[in-house]
Amino acid sequence: MATISQADFGQPQHFQMPHGLAMRRRSLLLLQSSLSCFAFAFPSPLQFYFPSGSASRLSSGRHMTTTASSFSSAASTEVSARMASDGGEVSFPESCLTHDLYSGITVDTESLDFCADDFKDRLTRAISVWRSEGKRGIWLKVPTKRSHLIASATSLGFDFQHGEAGFCVLTKWLPETESRLPHPPTHQVGVGCLVCHPMTGKMLVVQEKSGPAAKRKLWKMPTGLCDPSEDISEAAVRELMEETGLDCEVDEIVCFRQSHGGLFGRSDLFFVVKCSLASKYVEGLKEGREIELVPQEEEILDADWIDIEDYINQSVWKESPLYKEMNGKILRAARRDVASEGPQGFIAKNLPIGWRPGSNTIYVPSNSKL
Amino acid sequence: MATISQADFGQPQHFQMPHGLAMRRRSLLLLQSSLSCFAFAFPSPLQFYFPSGSASRLSSGRHMTTTASSFSSAASTEVSARMASDGGEVSFPESCLTHDLYSGITVDTESLDFCADDFKDRLTRAISVWRSEGKRGIWLKVPTKRSHLIASATSLGFDFQHGEAGFCVLTKWLPETESRLPHPPTHQVGVGCLVCHPMTGKMLVVQEKSGPAAKRKLWKMPTGLCDPSEDISEAAVRELMEETGLDCEVDEIVCFRQSHGGLFGRSDLFFVVKCSLASKYVEGLKEGREIELVPQEEEILDADWIDIEDYINQSVWKESPLYKEMNGKILRAARRDVASEGPQGFIAKNLPIGWRPGSNTIYVPSNSKL
Repeated sequence: MATISQADFGQPQHFQMPHGLAMRRRSLLLLQSSLSCFAFAFPSPLQFYFPSGSASRLSSGRHMTTTASSFSSAASTEVSARMASDGGEVSFPESCLTHDLYSGITVDTESLDFCADDFKDRLTRAISVWRSEGKRGIWLKVPTKRSHLIASATSLGFDFQHGEAGFCVLTKWLPETESRLPHPPTHQVGVGCLVCHPMTGKMLVVQEKSGPAAKRKLWKMPTGLCDPSEDISEAAVRELMEETGLDCEVDEIVCFRQSHGGLFGRSDLFFVVKCSLASKYVEGLKEGREIELVPQEEEILDADWIDIEDYINQSVWKESPLYKEMNGKILRAARRDVASEGPQGFIAKNLPIGWRPGSNTIYVPSNSKL
Repeated sequence: MATISQADFGQPQHFQMPHGLAMRRRSLLLLQSSLSCFAFAFPSPLQFYFPSGSASRLSSGRHMTTTASSFSSAASTEVSARMASDGGEVSFPESCLTHDLYSGITVDTESLDFCADDFKDRLTRAISVWRSEGKRGIWLKVPTKRSHLIASATSLGFDFQHGEAGFCVLTKWLPETESRLPHPPTHQVGVGCLVCHPMTGKMLVVQEKSGPAAKRKLWKMPTGLCDPSEDISEAAVRELMEETGLDCEVDEIVCFRQSHGGLFGRSDLFFVVKCSLASKYVEGLKEGREIELVPQEEEILDADWIDIEDYINQSVWKESPLYKEMNGKILRAARRDVASEGPQGFIAKNLPIGWRPGSNTIYVPSNSKL
């Protein structure tokens, strides 16, 4: 087996490649996910960082800044004519084209002030050239202000791949094979905060102002979705602060659940996160000060501490095998806390990958006592 | 605290509501994620199942079937004129409108055979009516074949919310406040399969055919992304079969990692899944038959068993704090296997929620021996 040394990595470079990934749809090599995990050089389909590279990360994903392509024959930002093997021309500025390592190409239409018909004409010619060059996946990023270009693209066989505030992305797979382009993100990630009172062991719960849970007067853990680019642990700390005004640290992930069939058929992962209140509250209690709960004005009707058995005994959960299981783990984790035992679930460690920028968090089994 | 009985739930009904969720963007109540976890009646923003409801789930998210709205004053599937408080008209068929419990409304343009100008005119009038009615979030689902309607919508202030093969969704927040509509799915979910040889304890690894990992001749675990609506455990079993031809069962999640900055700025969760080969291989070995590895033709150059230390000692991982940590957990999990110890991580239990259709899996700490 060959070994890999840092010296192999070459000079810092930065490619961007949200492109024609050379993989079957069903068994895509993991991109940001596992490829960055198991191969040094696949931190992201959008970004190809060589280990010693210093290129900055895409901060929001809203703008795919383009870099000079190694395939480019014209560095101009004006419309250029690039001669192809069949004598065709690609009448887009090289500055809006990004080539990737998987025979893919991205067209960012941000700067393309073409009318729909002109764009369709140019795209038609470009597809012909790219096909003759052996290109596979064509990615078209269309900012909201250029949405008049979308119908031109779909009339040429492009389909939606992704969308979010500010832009959408369409793709076209050129070969006569099943598309190997990746699907868009599939999961929402949510957290629930399990917090026990430092003295009484009671559980922190909230009642919402609106929605079916509110109608049933259900007492819940503070919950919320991870913001884009937010870690599970960060989301738990933020949500607890937002919904109750309390400051905490994350101890462990008690358990988690995966479900399917959510928004647009997507899935979710929901993590029950055991949190400990900041030490200032414990110190305050010792000095006779109660913990002040400040329910979020917009969403939360009330926040309180209740016996964990009362929480669990809400009939809507007792009727569910899933929530009986989850609540059993919650009870166990809460009682460990009271007994000052260590965590049993997964604890977070923020660790750099080492050879590329950005934060990564690994969740690993704690050193359990039992 | 009020308790909730099954009798409270009322008759079976089915609303769909990918709509104007009455929540701040940063602290969205969890939808499919935590709301279904902590409130009986929020299985999904697209679907509102009463517990005894028998409505079928959205199977793929590609089609939002509309149901007769309780707000509807006309059941016709033809264009209807619905009088609003200000005397305005909403000139869309009621059958393409879905009202939700958060003062939101969805327009599915699947059946709307309007030209762009006509659509813009109708949408303009509809917005006026909906605003006067106190509607908040307007959701517009546009199938690929109707993409000529998109520019009309964006000219009226709509922006992209979601996109995937077959359609995109645009939204508009009517109040003069910050939008509280949810963001699209944020995460890809990936798995890596940790498999040890039943006799030798060696680790199953693969080498890829293309990409930077291939260039470095890196030996990796078989990895892949969860397909849409696929559980972590299912993905692990499928990926192992696809990449090596081997059949397995999932034992535990050894650890997982969350990263940010992937495709379009999205994030990923990567789960290391410990798997045991099916018993037929163990029986075969006892009878002198080797385990046959069948590398996936398209992606995998080679598959083999190697000493786990050789796996870990690939320098690219030794240089990374993150992968050193991950590989430490992998080593520990692999050695537990050899020593016939129980799992230390999270094990999967497929459990129904109880009051609504669909599958859910909870991952809980195993009964560790240590």
